[in-house]
Amino acid sequence: MTPREMTRLLARVADGGISVAEAQEKLLCPAFESIGFARIDHHRSLRKGFPEVIFGLGKTSEQIIGILEKMVLRENIILVTRIEPAMAKTVMERFTSAQYHPEARLLCIRKKAPEITGIGTVLIISAGTSDIPVAQEAALTARAMGNRVETLFDVGVAGIHRLFAYQQMILDASVIIVVAGMEGALPSVVGGMVGSPVIAVPTSIGYGTSFGGMTALLGMLNSCASNIAVVNIDNGFGAGYMASAINHVARPKT
Amino acid sequence: MTPREMTRLLARVADGGISVAEAQEKLLCPAFESIGFARIDHHRSLRKGFPEVIFGLGKTSEQIIGILEKMVLRENIILVTRIEPAMAKTVMERFTSAQYHPEARLLCIRKKAPEITGIGTVLIISAGTSDIPVAQEAALTARAMGNRVETLFDVGVAGIHRLFAYQQMILDASVIIVVAGMEGALPSVVGGMVGSPVIAVPTSIGYGTSFGGMTALLGMLNSCASNIAVVNIDNGFGAGYMASAINHVARPKT
Amino acid sequence: MTPREMTRLLARVADGGISVAEAQEKLLCPAFESIGFARIDHHRSLRKGFPEVIFGLGKTSEQIIGILEKMVLRENIILVTRIEPAMAKTVMERFTSAQYHPEARLLCIRKKAPEITGIGTVLIISAGTSDIPVAQEAALTARAMGNRVETLFDVGVAGIHRLFAYQQMILDASVIIVVAGMEGALPSVVGGMVGSPVIAVPTSIGYGTSFGGMTALLGMLNSCASNIAVVNIDNGFGAGYMASAINHVARPKT
Amino acid sequence: MTPREMTRLLARVADGGISVAEAQEKLLCPAFESIGFARIDHHRSLRKGFPEVIFGLGKTSEQIIGILEKMVLRENIILVTRIEPAMAKTVMERFTSAQYHPEARLLCIRKKAPEITGIGTVLIISAGTSDIPVAQEAALTARAMGNRVETLFDVGVAGIHRLFAYQQMILDASVIIVVAGMEGALPSVVGGMVGSPVIAVPTSIGYGTSFGGMTALLGMLNSCASNIAVVNIDNGFGAGYMASAINHVARPKT
Amino acid sequence: MTPREMTRLLARVADGGISVAEAQEKLLCPAFESIGFARIDHHRSLRKGFPEVIFGLGKTSEQIIGILEKMVLRENIILVTRIEPAMAKTVMERFTSAQYHPEARLLCIRKKAPEITGIGTVLIISAGTSDIPVAQEAALTARAMGNRVETLFDVGVAGIHRLFAYQQMILDASVIIVVAGMEGALPSVVGGMVGSPVIAVPTSIGYGTSFGGMTALLGMLNSCASNIAVVNIDNGFGAGYMASAINHVARPKT
Amino acid sequence: MTPREMTRLLARVADGGISVAEAQEKLLCPAFESIGFARIDHHRSLRKGFPEVIFGLGKTSEQIIGILEKMVLRENIILVTRIEPAMAKTVMERFTSAQYHPEARLLCIRKKAPEITGIGTVLIISAGTSDIPVAQEAALTARAMGNRVETLFDVGVAGIHRLFAYQQMILDASVIIVVAGMEGALPSVVGGMVGSPVIAVPTSIGYGTSFGGMTALLGMLNSCASNIAVVNIDNGFGAGYMASAINHVARPKT
Amino acid sequence: MTPREMTRLLARVADGGISVAEAQEKLLCPAFESIGFARIDHHRSLRKGFPEVIFGLGKTSEQIIGILEKMVLRENIILVTRIEPAMAKTVMERFTSAQYHPEARLLCIRKKAPEITGIGTVLIISAGTSDIPVAQEAALTARAMGNRVETLFDVGVAGIHRLFAYQQMILDASVIIVVAGMEGALPSVVGGMVGSPVIAVPTSIGYGTSFGGMTALLGMLNSCASNIAVVNIDNGFGAGYMASAINHVARPKT
Amino acid sequence: MTPREMTRLLARVADGGISVAEAQEKLLCPAFESIGFARIDHHRSLRKGFPEVIFGLGKTSEQIIGILEKMVLRENIILVTRIEPAMAKTVMERFTSAQYHPEARLLCIRKKAPEITGIGTVLIISAGTSDIPVAQEAALTARAMGNRVETLFDVGVAGIHRLFAYQQMILDASVIIVVAGMEGALPSVVGGMVGSPVIAVPTSIGYGTSFGGMTALLGMLNSCASNIAVVNIDNGFGAGYMASAINHVARPKT
Repeated sequence: MTPREMTRLLARVADGGISVAEAQEKLLCPAFESIGFARIDHHRSLRKGFPEVIFGLGKTSEQIIGILEKMVLRENIILVTRIEPAMAKTVMERFTSAQYHPEARLLCIRKKAPEITGIGTVLIISAGTSDIPVAQEAALTARAMGNRVETLFDVGVAGIHRLFAYQQMILDASVIIVVAGMEGALPSVVGGMVGSPVIAVPTSIGYGTSFGGMTALLGMLNSCASNIAVVNIDNGFGAGYMASAINHVARPKT
Repeated sequence: MTPREMTRLLARVADGGISVAEAQEKLLCPAFESIGFARIDHHRSLRKGFPEVIFGLGKTSEQIIGILEKMVLRENIILVTRIEPAMAKTVMERFTSAQYHPEARLLCIRKKAPEITGIGTVLIISAGTSDIPVAQEAALTARAMGNRVETLFDVGVAGIHRLFAYQQMILDASVIIVVAGMEGALPSVVGGMVGSPVIAVPTSIGYGTSFGGMTALLGMLNSCASNIAVVNIDNGFGAGYMASAINHVARPKT
Repeated sequence: MTPREMTRLLARVADGGISVAEAQEKLLCPAFESIGFARIDHHRSLRKGFPEVIFGLGKTSEQIIGILEKMVLRENIILVTRIEPAMAKTVMERFTSAQYHPEARLLCIRKKAPEITGIGTVLIISAGTSDIPVAQEAALTARAMGNRVETLFDVGVAGIHRLFAYQQMILDASVIIVVAGMEGALPSVVGGMVGSPVIAVPTSIGYGTSFGGMTALLGMLNSCASNIAVVNIDNGFGAGYMASAINHVARPKT
Repeated sequence: MTPREMTRLLARVADGGISVAEAQEKLLCPAFESIGFARIDHHRSLRKGFPEVIFGLGKTSEQIIGILEKMVLRENIILVTRIEPAMAKTVMERFTSAQYHPEARLLCIRKKAPEITGIGTVLIISAGTSDIPVAQEAALTARAMGNRVETLFDVGVAGIHRLFAYQQMILDASVIIVVAGMEGALPSVVGGMVGSPVIAVPTSIGYGTSFGGMTALLGMLNSCASNIAVVNIDNGFGAGYMASAINHVARPKT
Repeated sequence: MTPREMTRLLARVADGGISVAEAQEKLLCPAFESIGFARIDHHRSLRKGFPEVIFGLGKTSEQIIGILEKMVLRENIILVTRIEPAMAKTVMERFTSAQYHPEARLLCIRKKAPEITGIGTVLIISAGTSDIPVAQEAALTARAMGNRVETLFDVGVAGIHRLFAYQQMILDASVIIVVAGMEGALPSVVGGMVGSPVIAVPTSIGYGTSFGGMTALLGMLNSCASNIAVVNIDNGFGAGYMASAINHVARPKT
Repeated sequence: MTPREMTRLLARVADGGISVAEAQEKLLCPAFESIGFARIDHHRSLRKGFPEVIFGLGKTSEQIIGILEKMVLRENIILVTRIEPAMAKTVMERFTSAQYHPEARLLCIRKKAPEITGIGTVLIISAGTSDIPVAQEAALTARAMGNRVETLFDVGVAGIHRLFAYQQMILDASVIIVVAGMEGALPSVVGGMVGSPVIAVPTSIGYGTSFGGMTALLGMLNSCASNIAVVNIDNGFGAGYMASAINHVARPKT
Repeated sequence: MTPREMTRLLARVADGGISVAEAQEKLLCPAFESIGFARIDHHRSLRKGFPEVIFGLGKTSEQIIGILEKMVLRENIILVTRIEPAMAKTVMERFTSAQYHPEARLLCIRKKAPEITGIGTVLIISAGTSDIPVAQEAALTARAMGNRVETLFDVGVAGIHRLFAYQQMILDASVIIVVAGMEGALPSVVGGMVGSPVIAVPTSIGYGTSFGGMTALLGMLNSCASNIAVVNIDNGFGAGYMASAINHVARPKT
Repeated sequence: MTPREMTRLLARVADGGISVAEAQEKLLCPAFESIGFARIDHHRSLRKGFPEVIFGLGKTSEQIIGILEKMVLRENIILVTRIEPAMAKTVMERFTSAQYHPEARLLCIRKKAPEITGIGTVLIISAGTSDIPVAQEAALTARAMGNRVETLFDVGVAGIHRLFAYQQMILDASVIIVVAGMEGALPSVVGGMVGSPVIAVPTSIGYGTSFGGMTALLGMLNSCASNIAVVNIDNGFGAGYMASAINHVARPKT
């Protein structure tokens, strides 16, 4: 339950749209629920505006299904990240409405399409074609969290005129995610073109001294542009999540 | 010249407050200016909303003074980062209005106090007392860029009740910077408490396997909270800059 | 033969419950026994209170069986760690009473259930669901060595209220093992809550810059809490063993 | 205030040894106290049985004195670690009863000698003469925390008969700290001799590929003895603290 | 052709046992021979006393067979290292007298058993059972090069009495190879017991922070015993080769 | 279209060999073309004298075919690097004239044999037989780019007379590529023999501390010969490309 | 003596300009000369077209002077690299005609200005002002070796329009050296603009995760542009030397 | 006391040259002696043929003097390694017969010149002039241990003809030490020329990616020559010690 949903619930209580008893039951959802191998954080939506996201890596399909069974009772949208196709198939047999995006290894269960609540547009740029899966994970995450999302793929620095042809699109974005492997130079160039915040995502694309993305990561951390912050290698999910947090920056309540 | 300043200039032309010739001269400032050892980027304010910042490390005081002499003709505020006290002293003999913050190794020349233009408050949290210099660099940068800034120092995870005592202050912030050395665990805990964007800054405080801040950096990149992005070790300036970019996230123009 | 077992044996000699000849044979067990590819350390129980544990990695099933055949003649309980299912199956065909725990990759042969001899309770906490296999290896080891063991899984720092809900359980433990991957921040938070000794176990859960658990390990070594010591990545066995050593801390003999 | 001290205080209230008002004032000490650059954790004694320890590295002498001024009002013993001689001198001008141990870089303020409360003896072994400063930091810490401490220096593995000459002393210890640089092999040998818990402390003694203690640390983490856990490089303080925690392992309250 | 073989050839010329023409042909063997993908070094026996050894890794079986076909015409013994079973099988179909040692992944073709020419005995010690394959590669290499070889397996430092039981055998060896994984502490202990040269071989046995043998390697390089030099991880072949070079140390010719 | 091809096109317009309309169409090729997952850089031939090369790693065969379909309309020669056999097979079903070199994992589509335009000869030297695949990738690339290429394989430093036997061939080359794994010492020796530029290519051949080619790379970067520059590990393609750039060094236009 | 100088000498013998005896003495210069602590390579000019360059690091001023005394008898130009000011001063007292460039830490002794023999222009680009010392070392080296040299400083990627303003200068160069610290992205952008060979020089400018230039180096090795090769960190000398080798690429002799 | 000295002592007892009482006193020297901060290993000469060597790093001059005072009573020769000039001066005021070699940072106290007992000659080769201090440490150590020693400096691979000019000297040596920094290629070339054992010593000479000698070390460990083993970076002492052990390889006693 997000704060926005709680406000609506209370408003409906106020105008009689829902009985006190019903509202109470919905509100009495415990802060977390233990199912032995997991303790599901039901208050995460309230605290953070989006429910707990299930990290698929290292979990069994039984564990994922067990967690989902508790969460679907309470949440409108649930994401499972880094879930391999075979395991996704098993989960989808139980939750037939779930959607799986194999390229991004992301599974999504949602009761309705997310409302657009973000301030502006999140633009996702990839340096190469091979970086697209990570970029897609970021795009799907940001969309699921209520943001308008645009993408621009394969505009790496070795042919930099490709990037400049989209200058207006880049200037118009509120938040920019730049996904790049190898030397990871693209965020510096994009960061130098705009004043808006740039989230840099290193990918493990490369070989030899790319060290599974470490080189791209280090390049991004040492960028000579300053409106840049970095997430973990191949962490498209985190980039999309952070972009959404930025795109929902709140005015002070008072 | 920031976009905002250009708008004002053109408005003054429109209402006769400034002659066309004067306005033209101001606008004809070249995109950059070469002084041999440097090519000063005069259009950076226009592109990014803030003038070029001088990175002091590895420059001589002659070079810094040379760059400043060109910039003070055109900019309202100029920052020099990572400038040691002795060199700052030399620079301040030439620019007597400059202010030096020795703890943060930051020098600032400004014609007037920066206007508050950010959406909300930038909160800067440090894990320990030893992390304060980096936190101060972030605070001074964010203030110089037009943001309301609050600070909260020495609330590390070994006595986590100290952090929870300031829960409301943390919830009220629009953007949060968390500065921590050693194991760098504080951003994860703060990130788990709120939905707003968190910028994590690892510091080089520690010894042995802290590896000059690498351990804190790695911890932050692998945070189990997702509303977190990371900047370089001890990069308080970059964190303040990025926080300001986030705190100025723009609605789409159309 | 543990020191406790030797005391009993001698007591039985004293009260005539066993003949001198029989006792002598039992005591004449050599300090170690060579079987070509291995030299089995029969005195380890005497020195350390627990027999040699067989490290399965890199051994053939023939070698493991060969070692076990010698050990079962003398020991009440034997552990084989890091043994894969296929190899465990072969071993269990020979030793039908052996029990295999596939999640923890641990095989156990025991003649009777271990007696509880530890001072208090060993509590094993895991940060995430994916860390459970390592936590289970620790739990099984500590139980086999005569300790009362409790477990608490999936209470990572991103939802820290889950942890605080179990504050009493944590305060009541004599020794605590904390198992965590990714940024490895949980031991710092637990260590800050209590005065009892905490053993931190980094796991290889994570991706990108988690470097197979190195990031969690470094975080734990640099913890700002001081009642913490660390074992190797994924070394649930070592953590359980060390916890048992701590939970059996002896008063001075005189 | 430690739990033991609180019990005594309450007992004195019960038998009229102290007035209710006086007791209340002592108990009303806040959980922490803010002095701008620091938030002093006054409840740490209650939670952990020992007051907050001041980490000297990166702090100014003004900051250390400021923290001490608040703490001396409430604590019987206070430690400052990693404090250089010049800074220690400044601190001792303000707190004339403070004692400084230059080899261990440890400063101690105490109102009375600590009572021996630990279960048995903590034995501190160093591999070489050059490792003594770290071993001394461990010894001083463990003594300050109420433990009987013995030391055994320069018994490295290149002349292993020196170690075996002290076998009985080693067997008699309840907890053992082993301090070693270079290849860090000594904890494995000691760990193989006994069943009691061993805390291994790598030191930065060595050159070339000793990598400032990293080699010793890695060796200790990979020890083939299992009753071993490791602390950070040169972290004599942490080893002494952990040893004390182990040496105070509590029986369950019920 | 080794120098010793050349001496014999010339002696046979001198005493008429072989015709000048025959001898000339044998001696006219070119310094090396090109077969496109390889340039076989026929003079290596002359320079180094042992023919070129074929490094199997990364070569096709066609390439190995091609090289062997040239070498068998001229050499009495040929080794192929790091050759996998499937490839060895293909090679043995062509060279039916070849012998393959699967544990050591070593293939050997020899026309007669090597003569014992070394000064004393090469003793090969392994710390654990899992280190035996590397130890066997060393043993087979040293035997092929004309050395008396003894082995002593599974005498690691966690039960150091096992090692001391073989003290005389260790003192009697002329050269000692010590093979160990994990923390790699055994060479230090052995090196401290004797004055003879010790070759330390780190193995990749271990997990987590053993880093595929890097930890053992670093430990050995930093040994506090000085009669130790180190070879690459898992390089049993190199250790056997170096031991043979040491065991054939020549008196000066004049 | 390379600059040379453009010159010819314009000459043909001048002498009536092609109509203005046809020439215009050829010249109106856009600077790049978007096909969703890729933005093909059609101007790369003009800027760099050789068309964009497709990096196969991480792309699907559908993506590669999609890019090729656009490129074959405009380019005379196209390379796809790091493409595995199975994927190459799929591509060749669509482009039947394509040639695949499995050892070098390189696929080439060309309309006619490349003209020799380089200044002199590019010589490619490999240290061992196992380094040949990388050397072949370099040779194929340099040939495709219009260079005379010679090769010299298996002349590593352990039998350095093999190298000196080819001294004249080495002295005659205009550019030299040296491919080596393990310790990567060969470029230093070759670089010391000549004054012409040497491109060093580390390979991942080796084991243990060769760290997948990192050791060879570091050795080459620290060469005591100064006419050496280095490319990424196993980057035969880059070495061939750079050698071609060197072998086409242009006199100044004026 | 360079090959060119030898040709002239022989021509002068042919036309009687020098006596046979004098020529013989000049030619009889030994291949190298031993002075105890050094073996000076007098044939290096012949082999490589430029005399041995003295690497100043780790040598005493006595050693440098001793080597120079032998070399000045035979060479027209001598460079000493990485020589600190104090040591340079001592050397210049002995060789008063020597010139010292403190920024580049380069000392040069030359009998006459070097003749321009290179094919085209070597252009040296630096990303920042702080990178200039390394760029100057490259420029001085390339000039000393007979090349026309141009420089372009402070055109880093954060204000990429500065770079494009010099597009013609970049296109006109025959060889380009790009010097950059921090993320090292500039060589990729420059390499993408031209077809000529680019030598990338990482510098140690940066902090935190720049790891003394390692990040820039890794970025350059993983460049998505292919006409790039890399030299060691801060190795301006090597870059200038390699650029000269490229700029002198020879046509085949036949 | 070395075994040889003990034999002589007993012979003198036998022939009446020394009284039984005197001999007994000499023999009753304890195995080791404790002086608080050190436990001096008096039996090391007996076990290893050379007394304990004092590692100066990290010791105070008081500690060194204290150890020496005990050792000079019993040993004929004592070495202190890695002792800085100032500390050496203090020690020499107490032991006026001590000799200090500042280049090698080695201090030696000896009662008479060591007897030559080694089999052949130890040859010490350095790649560059800057590597001489480490080479000297090796030479002094080997001489002190009773070996004939020759040296050959500055024969690195960039001018490899310098090395080949000394081919006979190299072939005549019984043991060879090769000292090299930077890429560390020299041991491979030397190892390929001879069959005798080669000890490779990496030095910290170099910059940038030489990583304080790590690059040279890795190169040596991966040498394609097999008669090579390696010691720690800058460990000239260890190389000399190991060379002496090799040069004293003993025939079997029976």
